[in-house]
Amino acid sequence: MAFSRSDSRAVDELRPIRFTRGWQEFAEGSVLVEFGNTRVLCAASFTPGVPRWKTGSGSGWVTAEYAMLPRATTTRNQRESIRGKIGGRTHEISRLIGRSLRAVVNLEALGENSITLDCDVLQADGGTRTAAITGAYVALADAISWGKENGHIRSDVRVLLDSVSAVSVGIIDGTPCLDLPYVEDVRADTDMNVVVTGNGNFVEVQGTAEGATFDRKELNTLLDLAVKGTSELAKLQAQALQED
Amino acid sequence: MAFSRSDSRAVDELRPIRFTRGWQEFAEGSVLVEFGNTRVLCAASFTPGVPRWKTGSGSGWVTAEYAMLPRATTTRNQRESIRGKIGGRTHEISRLIGRSLRAVVNLEALGENSITLDCDVLQADGGTRTAAITGAYVALADAISWGKENGHIRSDVRVLLDSVSAVSVGIIDGTPCLDLPYVEDVRADTDMNVVVTGNGNFVEVQGTAEGATFDRKELNTLLDLAVKGTSELAKLQAQALQED
Amino acid sequence: MAFSRSDSRAVDELRPIRFTRGWQEFAEGSVLVEFGNTRVLCAASFTPGVPRWKTGSGSGWVTAEYAMLPRATTTRNQRESIRGKIGGRTHEISRLIGRSLRAVVNLEALGENSITLDCDVLQADGGTRTAAITGAYVALADAISWGKENGHIRSDVRVLLDSVSAVSVGIIDGTPCLDLPYVEDVRADTDMNVVVTGNGNFVEVQGTAEGATFDRKELNTLLDLAVKGTSELAKLQAQALQED
Amino acid sequence: MAFSRSDSRAVDELRPIRFTRGWQEFAEGSVLVEFGNTRVLCAASFTPGVPRWKTGSGSGWVTAEYAMLPRATTTRNQRESIRGKIGGRTHEISRLIGRSLRAVVNLEALGENSITLDCDVLQADGGTRTAAITGAYVALADAISWGKENGHIRSDVRVLLDSVSAVSVGIIDGTPCLDLPYVEDVRADTDMNVVVTGNGNFVEVQGTAEGATFDRKELNTLLDLAVKGTSELAKLQAQALQED
Amino acid sequence: MAFSRSDSRAVDELRPIRFTRGWQEFAEGSVLVEFGNTRVLCAASFTPGVPRWKTGSGSGWVTAEYAMLPRATTTRNQRESIRGKIGGRTHEISRLIGRSLRAVVNLEALGENSITLDCDVLQADGGTRTAAITGAYVALADAISWGKENGHIRSDVRVLLDSVSAVSVGIIDGTPCLDLPYVEDVRADTDMNVVVTGNGNFVEVQGTAEGATFDRKELNTLLDLAVKGTSELAKLQAQALQED
Amino acid sequence: MAFSRSDSRAVDELRPIRFTRGWQEFAEGSVLVEFGNTRVLCAASFTPGVPRWKTGSGSGWVTAEYAMLPRATTTRNQRESIRGKIGGRTHEISRLIGRSLRAVVNLEALGENSITLDCDVLQADGGTRTAAITGAYVALADAISWGKENGHIRSDVRVLLDSVSAVSVGIIDGTPCLDLPYVEDVRADTDMNVVVTGNGNFVEVQGTAEGATFDRKELNTLLDLAVKGTSELAKLQAQALQED
Repeated sequence: MAFSRSDSRAVDELRPIRFTRGWQEFAEGSVLVEFGNTRVLCAASFTPGVPRWKTGSGSGWVTAEYAMLPRATTTRNQRESIRGKIGGRTHEISRLIGRSLRAVVNLEALGENSITLDCDVLQADGGTRTAAITGAYVALADAISWGKENGHIRSDVRVLLDSVSAVSVGIIDGTPCLDLPYVEDVRADTDMNVVVTGNGNFVEVQGTAEGATFDRKELNTLLDLAVKGTSELAKLQAQALQED
Repeated sequence: MAFSRSDSRAVDELRPIRFTRGWQEFAEGSVLVEFGNTRVLCAASFTPGVPRWKTGSGSGWVTAEYAMLPRATTTRNQRESIRGKIGGRTHEISRLIGRSLRAVVNLEALGENSITLDCDVLQADGGTRTAAITGAYVALADAISWGKENGHIRSDVRVLLDSVSAVSVGIIDGTPCLDLPYVEDVRADTDMNVVVTGNGNFVEVQGTAEGATFDRKELNTLLDLAVKGTSELAKLQAQALQED
Repeated sequence: MAFSRSDSRAVDELRPIRFTRGWQEFAEGSVLVEFGNTRVLCAASFTPGVPRWKTGSGSGWVTAEYAMLPRATTTRNQRESIRGKIGGRTHEISRLIGRSLRAVVNLEALGENSITLDCDVLQADGGTRTAAITGAYVALADAISWGKENGHIRSDVRVLLDSVSAVSVGIIDGTPCLDLPYVEDVRADTDMNVVVTGNGNFVEVQGTAEGATFDRKELNTLLDLAVKGTSELAKLQAQALQED
Repeated sequence: MAFSRSDSRAVDELRPIRFTRGWQEFAEGSVLVEFGNTRVLCAASFTPGVPRWKTGSGSGWVTAEYAMLPRATTTRNQRESIRGKIGGRTHEISRLIGRSLRAVVNLEALGENSITLDCDVLQADGGTRTAAITGAYVALADAISWGKENGHIRSDVRVLLDSVSAVSVGIIDGTPCLDLPYVEDVRADTDMNVVVTGNGNFVEVQGTAEGATFDRKELNTLLDLAVKGTSELAKLQAQALQED
Repeated sequence: MAFSRSDSRAVDELRPIRFTRGWQEFAEGSVLVEFGNTRVLCAASFTPGVPRWKTGSGSGWVTAEYAMLPRATTTRNQRESIRGKIGGRTHEISRLIGRSLRAVVNLEALGENSITLDCDVLQADGGTRTAAITGAYVALADAISWGKENGHIRSDVRVLLDSVSAVSVGIIDGTPCLDLPYVEDVRADTDMNVVVTGNGNFVEVQGTAEGATFDRKELNTLLDLAVKGTSELAKLQAQALQED
Repeated sequence: MAFSRSDSRAVDELRPIRFTRGWQEFAEGSVLVEFGNTRVLCAASFTPGVPRWKTGSGSGWVTAEYAMLPRATTTRNQRESIRGKIGGRTHEISRLIGRSLRAVVNLEALGENSITLDCDVLQADGGTRTAAITGAYVALADAISWGKENGHIRSDVRVLLDSVSAVSVGIIDGTPCLDLPYVEDVRADTDMNVVVTGNGNFVEVQGTAEGATFDRKELNTLLDLAVKGTSELAKLQAQALQED
């Protein structure tokens, strides 16, 4: 019997993707990104100046913080502010988003300015970290434009070297699939998040066996799917940024 | 010269109010409430069972947690999860929302069930705590309906004794005004948050002098405005709950 | 049948009030204040200089911290230092005391000096926050005198614009009463703390329904009682400060 | 030139010692102990039941918590609740008080009951930990009497095996002295706290060189002084407990 | 000019690897593992019973905690216990080690027993997480043997499905290299940690661009190196476990 | 019947003592010290500069941090970094080590430099704090030599005024014994840690009754044993420092 996905998509098909720029009106860049039912609000805050350890370096900094509303999920999660500490998963994803964005930023061209990306998951249906990276890139682009328009960045430099997006892939009942929603994610034997630049190079490859290990051939198929998915996401990002 | 408000409203006029029910699809009740540019996402989580100190009492519990996204405001605020503790203001508002809702809930009729209201401010333009109370009531009503439909609450009992809403009032340059946006809030000499039931009784009156003290006459005018505003909010809540 | 209070007081009568100045000998101002069995030790610490955010402003700062000894109450409470965090109630009361005192201080006249009021409840029998405000004012007055005598404040300026005191009022079995001890506090349907200046203006009005909501008429009666009580407290404060 | 003490006492003379029993009226035992200007409020809280690790053992537990009000000292100390953690010194002294008291308690005779001693320093002028131990013993004795009177402890068992008290000794400019106030404490080359039972046996000996080390002869002289001081304290404790 | 490594190794050559079993005598399994100058002490603690969320499941649990001594590195790092929280990197590595080990454990066969792997880096010269995984496997094997010998695990079940080891690979000046020491790690453009089972399947692939992104061909070369390195490590693990 | 020790030692005999200098290669001083099965890794970190409160004083600072690996003991202890706070015992021992070392350091001669001693217990079999002090002295001596060789300390000043070592003594079944391993420690009625300089003067005397109090004669015998033990340790320290 043929394998069929929970939402009838083809195995190499993305969920419906939507970017809403300017969702929060006070941020220098703000995007509500949707991968199907997954909704992440990405806010880019531009601050002249850099953390102490970069002062005087002439170059800037980009960092990210990921979090989830208590009721983004099917059952309520306790707030990390109430628990008094950030969990390991949150730390890990925040660091991943920051690294992914810095891979396409020319920090020297940014000058001594800092951009913080807040990625808050309003609704979680799988792939929140990849949606966060993909949306944060758009918010980042808007914040850099703001920095140029407001004279914080020289208008003649190229701060963004490329675009960056991310997608999850996984093996479900032996079938490699692209962009897993929550119901597929929990069934997947292998789960991989791949971050790819607009020109198709890798920034991060994070594959994890969850139950069954994976062989070299499966790894290759997963990478093929991820490259296809991120190349489509790159086009959608470009399209969103052209709107005004 | 006549006093005029930043957004040309009459002194006793509310900002445009909007309730979007079902904004988050996993919560038993979810409302995005807007008071002008202030946007608060209220999620009601229904859990059978009660905290240990109420076990065996036969009665339920309703509590609330308030928080703000880092970039809800014009400049970025550090996350309380990163700071490792909840600030005094957050605590105070969470407690206020919880008390306000419990004032209209028959906890015995709720039975040994708990409802947690998460009020996350997505955008802050003054009056976030009053918007949170007003929206949380609607989410609470939906969660109670869910509890009845799913057999957790007897369908023949009246859990909600009345509706409840809240509004801010304040004195700006000597003029008492209703429902202050941020620019007015910072200029106000006196700031008051008033929580009122649908039938017009008081649940909370919290008035604070910020610079100049206030006399009995001013206090009376502020209370009049608050009663007018909350009576309009009560109608809008009822209207929102009738939609399907 | 006539309503009668637990300690036979009239409904508009304060408990026995006592101020012992200089209780702690190292503080610039120190008062042990007693409202019946409620005992709060108020210490005012005068420090030249202001927090960073006020540096260079030419004006000073007054702040307060409220706490309770573990065995101030009938059963032992865990220390907040052991729990590793300040509870919501503590934060709320500390902020209330600070705001109440600042309402009567001319911060410009104070100059770049800071005064911290530590209000530690040694014994708690209801009304600890109102006793704290009332006692803290006396300790503050002493600390300001100390600042003048020691050349930190110009002797010809008026730092205190007025006195300030506070009292609790509440509705017990339908009867509005002044200055509730613990046994009445737990029975009250409505509980209100009112902070009033020496000349009779309001600084804070915090009324909370605990079980039954309250109407406009009840609110007015409670405010009348509070004004009467604080006017008596203002006289007792003045008297205490005249002693030497 | 002869050595003379700051307050003209003989080198082997205690400061004026005072015990005020029943200072806090809700605690099962409560004593305000004074060693000169040092004032410590000791409250004993009696709770039927024991911590989990002792449940079913048939024997009880005695523990202590030491703390200091922010303005007990000449300059204000930050609260440990605000800092979010207990300092090393506080931990160390709390543990010392607990061990010292347990040395004279027959935990089996206490039965499965817990007594917590809260020792809060209201004013600090040297020797706060020794005053705390000395006062806590008296509060403990009262709490044990309470436990017997209220049927939690069998009336025919001897819970307290002996009394216990403590005193500081130190070497100032080469002269060993008993019961050091703050001004002497900071000048002392060696500082020793000694905890002794009513019958003259040692419970704790904690000697520390602060600048100059000490030899065996000096150690012996310090121990002699401590034994003399604690034998006087034991008499004063007995006397305080006889009053009614 | 030919590329040459800091320690003259071939690009596909491991550093000298050493396992010292039984280094800590109280643990059920204990291994000091060395990858060149990197030294990690791995202790496996066997505890009958499982965390609450697994109770009654009939299956066991394996978890890990990674930490570093303050002076494992060339400059001292502050202790995480002093900072009061675990950093993001520590969390991330602890989770990675736990997942890697669980990938080769039959948790049902383990029964309701828990094994905690403590991996403490005594000296850090690159590749601490891969050394930790490789050493922890050996300690885990010893702890499982202990569990069988002591009757906690049935002796006829196979708990370990395969061995697991890990190695770092990276691209330095364009040259892919195996098992990077610290000096190479900081120069690497791409850094990848690969966890592989004894039979050559992947458990984790974590590749990160640090400055320059990497293409598909480079990714493949890195994976080839990692597979070669882990296959050698698997032999050394087996050898170490045969010794007695 | 004659008393006999668990490991057949004479009552006044030390366990086998071993110092391994240079165990960690990055620290300015590093010693693995062994007292029988107790193993403590002591690392001295030399940093030019002093904490803020000593800046400009011309003199240096020496401090220590003590910790224990989770599986140093027969059953696993939770990490203090995971619990989020340092326990009382850890604080107490860290402070003791720091004070003990400072007693033999001429801080003025050290100049404005800081040395931190990290004492991590890798295996715990009684006497960990005394082993830590004894080993830390050797690591400190090496770090001071490093400071002189690297021009941070003037080569003609004497920074170390004397050596310092420590040993535990205790009364077991009425018999005073030197250097207790864990099995004896838990049986001891009285436990004393004594820190002594090379010339035989006391730095710290910390005696604690654990169950039975002790009299003056027993105290004297314990001090005799401690003086004998530390005099032997001083010789072994000198010997270790002569090796190269």
